[in-house]
Amino acid sequence: MGSAFVPAQDGAAVSGDDLAGVIASVRGSGPLVHCLTNVVVSQFTANVLLAVGAAPAMVHSAEEAGALARVAGGVLVNLGTVTSVTAAAMRVAVKEAAGGGRPWVLDPVAVGPLPWRTGLAHELLESAPPAVVRGNPSEILALDGGAGGRGVDSTDVPEAALDAATGLARRYGCVVAVSGPEDVLTDGARVVRVANGHPLLPLVTGTGCALGALVAACVAVTGDALVAAAAATGLLTVAAEVAAVRSAGPGTFAVALIDELYALSPERLAGAVNLR
Amino acid sequence: MGSAFVPAQDGAAVSGDDLAGVIASVRGSGPLVHCLTNVVVSQFTANVLLAVGAAPAMVHSAEEAGALARVAGGVLVNLGTVTSVTAAAMRVAVKEAAGGGRPWVLDPVAVGPLPWRTGLAHELLESAPPAVVRGNPSEILALDGGAGGRGVDSTDVPEAALDAATGLARRYGCVVAVSGPEDVLTDGARVVRVANGHPLLPLVTGTGCALGALVAACVAVTGDALVAAAAATGLLTVAAEVAAVRSAGPGTFAVALIDELYALSPERLAGAVNLR
Amino acid sequence: MGSAFVPAQDGAAVSGDDLAGVIASVRGSGPLVHCLTNVVVSQFTANVLLAVGAAPAMVHSAEEAGALARVAGGVLVNLGTVTSVTAAAMRVAVKEAAGGGRPWVLDPVAVGPLPWRTGLAHELLESAPPAVVRGNPSEILALDGGAGGRGVDSTDVPEAALDAATGLARRYGCVVAVSGPEDVLTDGARVVRVANGHPLLPLVTGTGCALGALVAACVAVTGDALVAAAAATGLLTVAAEVAAVRSAGPGTFAVALIDELYALSPERLAGAVNLR
Repeated sequence: MGSAFVPAQDGAAVSGDDLAGVIASVRGSGPLVHCLTNVVVSQFTANVLLAVGAAPAMVHSAEEAGALARVAGGVLVNLGTVTSVTAAAMRVAVKEAAGGGRPWVLDPVAVGPLPWRTGLAHELLESAPPAVVRGNPSEILALDGGAGGRGVDSTDVPEAALDAATGLARRYGCVVAVSGPEDVLTDGARVVRVANGHPLLPLVTGTGCALGALVAACVAVTGDALVAAAAATGLLTVAAEVAAVRSAGPGTFAVALIDELYALSPERLAGAVNLR
Repeated sequence: MGSAFVPAQDGAAVSGDDLAGVIASVRGSGPLVHCLTNVVVSQFTANVLLAVGAAPAMVHSAEEAGALARVAGGVLVNLGTVTSVTAAAMRVAVKEAAGGGRPWVLDPVAVGPLPWRTGLAHELLESAPPAVVRGNPSEILALDGGAGGRGVDSTDVPEAALDAATGLARRYGCVVAVSGPEDVLTDGARVVRVANGHPLLPLVTGTGCALGALVAACVAVTGDALVAAAAATGLLTVAAEVAAVRSAGPGTFAVALIDELYALSPERLAGAVNLR
Repeated sequence: MGSAFVPAQDGAAVSGDDLAGVIASVRGSGPLVHCLTNVVVSQFTANVLLAVGAAPAMVHSAEEAGALARVAGGVLVNLGTVTSVTAAAMRVAVKEAAGGGRPWVLDPVAVGPLPWRTGLAHELLESAPPAVVRGNPSEILALDGGAGGRGVDSTDVPEAALDAATGLARRYGCVVAVSGPEDVLTDGARVVRVANGHPLLPLVTGTGCALGALVAACVAVTGDALVAAAAATGLLTVAAEVAAVRSAGPGTFAVALIDELYALSPERLAGAVNLR
């Protein structure tokens, strides 16, 4: 009772082999990932999904989003450039995903300082619990009722949002993944941290949003959403480390990142990911 | 009468020199291509058109799409992320393109499993015959009344859609171009196959959609829509072969593809394209 | 009285050191730039802003655009793919930016041949004076009441639009930046020309639109909008010169341009920019 914070376990809650299994399964089965995402990152998101073997489908209309969500392997709802038109599609998609037993992932971009989308995020969460919520620390704090940041960038570190993440995870029975220099993920009981990545990652638009899409691809192939979110996080951040080696700046890095997501084997991921 | 399938001729229905002439004309005249396309591929499509010397214009509002379609060299309608807002613009654009004697190209993305856009595609086809329909086998089969695939990817080979393509071509007096490892194109009488390309092409989002835009650029400069569609197909697939040589994965490939579309001369295209 | 054209001064109206100071300030303070821009260039625009140290935020809904515009460092309104939905957001954003004392920048894409957006551009200009209008010569001529071009490309040279630019600058008390092989900028009294750049720039979609976003980043950190617009123009065009050296075509150039925008120091900019 009270502030029931669950500390990290001595051994990591998930293993590199767990992650490798998820990525092998994504590459092997090519899950259909229905993305209701923002217009800034749509191309990059689709290319990231294709690189890892998933099949992206971007359908944004209320007339169609439900039919697709009902048959998709996973559904991503990203609030980045939501308007009244796409919000209607998101409502339908979440409802039909739930009706069809399909996992959905919420990326609450810029929730906090913008009241309209904050209300929409809560409305979606209440309509059907997501498998995973992925955001930066400010967004997770705001979603839990705290003060928000100024938008898509975040001034807080993930660890500062762990209490909020745990609260959200327990309220909705979902996993919450908080992105940052060291990602922190929890299902409300277990906590896992992924200490990979590179400073160029936040200098490329859509890397966080693409992580949300990767999570949606991973929850399509495993019932353990914490392992799925950790697998997506490990894959993106390890690929980023490899890509950075052959990059001259954020332009070449974004291109190399797609190459490395395509090339990274499950075995190499298991060896390189730094979990705790 | 009956199933009047027209087989491929002994010599290819079009020649490499025919294709080279179209590409030279595009590079020389810089046709204005009005794209009503999806938000995922808009940037890539515009860069592909600029690389080959065409002038892309993306205008999506019902208030303006008609005025632009009436003066464009060619109009592309791609249903990828269509909503009620952009559907209204598409209806106006197709009507005004027809009124102005401008060719239009339909890319029926994900037609089949999604009834709303399938109805829209038929409505547009009935309102004014297109110059070319370009799609993957599942989309062409679905447009002809068959069972559809699961979205933008396709599980059928182009040859399996040739009967459907022929039927559509005759019904609307248009060319139908079916994309795949070997592209199959027909105007309902002649059939041409383009056997170029690379396995990395479908791993980059928007390569098929950009092909639709290239077709719209090519129909702007020639009255023979079969030659136009073959020229666009040959240009993209030969450039892909060259680009793949200097690519480490789908990221670098997408970038190199733009370079090679810019560099590929009509003469080199004529020498490298594999028509039958 | 009469045609009060103000000629360029013997020394340039602004100096390379002025520009360097603005860029250093952008990199140091990371201004939040609220972009209401078109779907074709959103990703590229965001990556350009991130590369120079600014914080892009793309929010397109009427429900939210006002709240963000009121707190942003600068607001960009780009009419490229405007629809009735995003036009409503633009009206709110301009009004709230003015209410909050935040500078806004207009990029009147394709104004002239398209009456609806031409009316919208004038409506926005009348509702609150912008800090800067950035366009190609055809757009500036059309905005001043002249005949327009055929869309986003321009057949006029910037110098031919100087009278129109001067007229607009005086009418709205703003700076007008005319893009081309040699950019011409004026606040209605001073005139500055930036003679940098590369022929590959117009072959990459969104370089002009990204310049508008860079201008919005620069007006966020200085009260002298002419210096801000010149700084943005110098930064993009000098980076383009460096990027072109290591490019094989427009694909690799677009990627290298992001790298060079990230790497270019204020000092190097001051040394390489060609002002007159």
